[in-house]
Amino acid sequence: MINIKNQEVIKAFGSRVRELRISQNLSQEELANSAGIPISQVGRIERGEINPTLSTIHALSSALNLNIERLFVK
Amino acid sequence: MINIKNQEVIKAFGSRVRELRISQNLSQEELANSAGIPISQVGRIERGEINPTLSTIHALSSALNLNIERLFVK
Repeated sequence: MINIKNQEVIKAFGSRVRELRISQNLSQEELANSAGIPISQVGRIERGEINPTLSTIHALSSALNLNIERLFVK
Repeated sequence: MINIKNQEVIKAFGSRVRELRISQNLSQEELANSAGIPISQVGRIERGEINPTLSTIHALSSALNLNIERLFVK
């Protein structure tokens, strides 16, 4: 069971990924393909529905051409 | 199956957690207790044996009193 505090972290991360994806004019499909993860997973991550692993977080940062810490800093 | 690239990311993260923990003179047990995760999990994370989730990464950063991005930046 993910506690409330974690839900905030997971939702904030999802919003950040969405913000960065849109700022680069990428569709969820384009981001998913270049990150090598399923399209459905990008949607669920952006909506804060799933708790991504470090390797998924890294795959997303690589696909966005950003250092991983940029996914956590505005 | 975690690919090689991911293994590097996971190992680097583990080394970083270990480096930060030691710099704060914390034992694995103290870090685990304040992060609310099992001691065995801290050891396995530090050795790069498991692929931690975002909420575990956040729990570790909180326990180390650091913003989450500091776990990814030297």
